[in-house]
Amino acid sequence: MERNILLTIEYDGTDFSGWQRQPDVRTVQGTLESILSRLCGSKISLNGTSRTDAGVHALGQRASFRCKTAIPVEKIPFAVNNIAGEVMKDGDIKVVSAEEVSEDFHARFNAKGKKYRYRIRNSAAMPVFLRNYRYRVWKELDVKLMREAAGYIRGTHDFACFQAAGGNPGESTVRTVHSLEVTEKSPETDCAESFGGRQDFQGKDIDIEISGDGFLYNMVRIIAGTLVEVGMGKISPEAVKHIVESKDRTLAGHTAPPQGLFLVEVYY
Amino acid sequence: MERNILLTIEYDGTDFSGWQRQPDVRTVQGTLESILSRLCGSKISLNGTSRTDAGVHALGQRASFRCKTAIPVEKIPFAVNNIAGEVMKDGDIKVVSAEEVSEDFHARFNAKGKKYRYRIRNSAAMPVFLRNYRYRVWKELDVKLMREAAGYIRGTHDFACFQAAGGNPGESTVRTVHSLEVTEKSPETDCAESFGGRQDFQGKDIDIEISGDGFLYNMVRIIAGTLVEVGMGKISPEAVKHIVESKDRTLAGHTAPPQGLFLVEVYY
Repeated sequence: MERNILLTIEYDGTDFSGWQRQPDVRTVQGTLESILSRLCGSKISLNGTSRTDAGVHALGQRASFRCKTAIPVEKIPFAVNNIAGEVMKDGDIKVVSAEEVSEDFHARFNAKGKKYRYRIRNSAAMPVFLRNYRYRVWKELDVKLMREAAGYIRGTHDFACFQAAGGNPGESTVRTVHSLEVTEKSPETDCAESFGGRQDFQGKDIDIEISGDGFLYNMVRIIAGTLVEVGMGKISPEAVKHIVESKDRTLAGHTAPPQGLFLVEVYY
Repeated sequence: MERNILLTIEYDGTDFSGWQRQPDVRTVQGTLESILSRLCGSKISLNGTSRTDAGVHALGQRASFRCKTAIPVEKIPFAVNNIAGEVMKDGDIKVVSAEEVSEDFHARFNAKGKKYRYRIRNSAAMPVFLRNYRYRVWKELDVKLMREAAGYIRGTHDFACFQAAGGNPGESTVRTVHSLEVTEKSPETDCAESFGGRQDFQGKDIDIEISGDGFLYNMVRIIAGTLVEVGMGKISPEAVKHIVESKDRTLAGHTAPPQGLFLVEVYY
């Protein structure tokens, strides 16, 4: 009997050329489809919610597929992770959970929204162990200004200014950002590998957490780059209001690098 | 004028075949010697304190070298890291500091002792982002028992039971362990990447921190493996006393994997 299965997937994006299957390069979708095809004994096609770019990470990517395997659904994570980690040495992918969903469920089309986290290490020093998981910004960022600017981004807007070239022309660029928070914490409490016995660390960790009903191409990374420029004093918070109204990408900030971005959750 | 320079070095051991220079494989020493040779304009030979194995990390490795460059010593870290990160894409090495030392100083021979940290993720769940930086142990470990066993390891002993084959025959295996602490903490406060919005995490982080005047081949990893087996209830704490007295490697525990080990500091 064929079942429709929804997976929740975690991956370290560092050694993948993004989610989307491509010939001759290692992708998350391609790797998982290989593993699932082995597991199910037939060629599997995985429908992912978010086509994350190369270097982008996921805590809660979702993807659905149909298969005829008799494996109980609650055993699928263990079976997949075992093949991934032990057999194929793909330890950078992990299936967190699996559930059976209705016949007509589709991981992308049924999604109501997503949450992303963009992680910045604001310091002159960067532990080597975090190089693939943070955007390192040297200049001290003013988080108060960043939070002020965030206020002009929350809500329903035409976000064309935060869309990279390469989106779908003709498609509406109006989206709703339900929440956008900028949090700050001392790095001593996070990933302490680099602080052996040394007390010389200065700086802070800044996380930008955003949830919305949908995101344009590179929207979160461009918002992050824009907020970083606000934090540096290059763009004023009030200017962000005008940037959004302008719908002009060239007025917004740079596209922050991929390794700071984590797809946290998909909502159904 | 030739100067003798001591570097403090941090590295992510994942993509190296250890510290020691070897032909045809990527090593920390080999990579740093390339960079320093570029910087100094002459062939540089680096003397490292600890020949860490493949996969083992360092927060405070030390290495000394002689060179004639006019670059001020305090600018050496930036210059090296710039070449490493930007030019050679070796972002997994970082020179933390550089100081000029006396003519006869040698990073290894002058060392009075070292401190290591061995890091365990004691949980059924392991974030993919930590896979190269922790020993994942599934079975719940009893930290109280581990601390009791640690008491029999502290002090001056003949540690032959914790020496892997391949050490120097005929060399004394007596060493002094100045301190050995087993600490435990909730993982929610450490490396929160994997805890996006999910509150389903169970388990704990266990760190074994050890300092001593010198370490035999694989000694810290065998002590870590032994303490893990004590924590699992396979070896009793009192048995560790007898294992040390026996000087018999086959009675001690397994050699814990390299990725949990960090060289924290070298003492002069």
